[in-house]
Order: sequence, then structure tokens, then C-alpha cells
Amino acid sequence: MRTRTSALREKSTVYDLGMFANTPKPPYWVVVFTSHRRDDEGYGAMSERMQELASQQPGYLGIESARGSDGVGITVSYWKDRQSIAAWKAHLEHRQAQARGREQWYSRYQVRVAKVEYDYEFPPM
Amino acid sequence: MRTRTSALREKSTVYDLGMFANTPKPPYWVVVFTSHRRDDEGYGAMSERMQELASQQPGYLGIESARGSDGVGITVSYWKDRQSIAAWKAHLEHRQAQARGREQWYSRYQVRVAKVEYDYEFPPM
Repeated sequence: MRTRTSALREKSTVYDLGMFANTPKPPYWVVVFTSHRRDDEGYGAMSERMQELASQQPGYLGIESARGSDGVGITVSYWKDRQSIAAWKAHLEHRQAQARGREQWYSRYQVRVAKVEYDYEFPPM
Repeated sequence: MRTRTSALREKSTVYDLGMFANTPKPPYWVVVFTSHRRDDEGYGAMSERMQELASQQPGYLGIESARGSDGVGITVSYWKDRQSIAAWKAHLEHRQAQARGREQWYSRYQVRVAKVEYDYEFPPM
């Protein structure tokens, strides 16, 4: 099991960026970004850049992302507090990516900002 | 755009179950379930049954789900309050599915329970 996970880790950007975010004890905050992508020209480079940039922001705790072949994607990013979420949303380069997302990549998206009250995992740590 | 979305709606169970959950004004609650699936024998039927069963529970507000070809999946379900989340977790048939998940389907998962404080979407409603 561990070997298999390690193999996937090497193959996938999602894994490289931490498929499972290593978040601290709650409370912390989560942004749930649900989207339907209709175009992927230039998307991969932007996505990688945004994940790299996000990881450099104050209060960033981690990110997890999945997208199926039907274009439906969910990205969850974790943050220390709502101020760090607001600052990341207002970041200039991120705002440019958001604008291009609305113009080109996404037919629709929803964003929900929530405070994590408790968490658990398997296998238990 | 609308035609394309309609076409996807017919092809995908995820779309049928509401790719984008139609949630009420915050506050409401979200359960973020991040998983890595290592086996899919019997998984599809269980997943459909659990989504059907969840949708019948008190306080259920919707569900969204995506899984990539690398086995990484994120499912977010929305609930009225933390009591309805606890009741769903304790549901007998759901507990049986959870046990089989740990034994067979998942190499790893994380669950985070959070209170949604605000949300927004594109295109704006």
C-alpha cells in the first residue's frame, strides 16, 4: 500500500502538491471550489502556477484537488483564517487568473468558505 | 453552453445527482471527504446507494463529487447543521459502507467538517 502510494506520488502533480493536505488541529478554514471546465487551453500552466503561488501566501495550509473526465472538478484549499483567504482572493496575479477563468475555462463555478470544526482520517494517525 | 451542460447532465451520474449543489443562504455545514481509492469492485453500486440514502436524511442539502484517473477523489456533502451530519455518520447502512470502505476500497481518506460562512458563484445568480 505504501509502495503504491509512493509510486502515485511520483506520477502525479496532485500528489506532489500533497494529495492529502497535512492540516493542523482545527479550527482552520477551507475554501471549496467546485467547477465545470469547458476549455483547457492554457489551464494546466495556470493551475500549477496558482498552486505554487497560493502555497507562498501567509496562512496557507494545503490544497487538494480532483477532476473527473466529465469536466467536473473540486479543489479544496486550507487556510489559517478568513483574512488569509481574503488576501489570496485579492492577489493581483490570482485575480488575473480568476478573470481568465470566467472568460475561458469555466462554464460555471461555486465557492464556499467554511470554518473547519473537526476532522478525522483513515488510517488513524 | 447550456446545451453542452444538458448533454453532460444526461451522461453523468454526478450531474444527475446535482453536480452543483443548490444550497441555501449560509450558514450551513459541509463535509469534505478526500480519499484515495485502491479498489473499485462493488464501489459504484455502494456509492449510488449512499448518495440516494444521504439525500433522504433530515438536514441533507446536496452533494458534489469528483474523482480523477489517479484514484484521488473529493466528495463534499452539505447539511443543515452538525446534528444532521452526526446522524448520517451513525446511520446503520452508512456505517456498513464505511467499514467496507476501510477494508476494501480506500487506502486512505480524510474527513473535515466545517461551517460555511459565505459563498458565491459564477455566473452570478
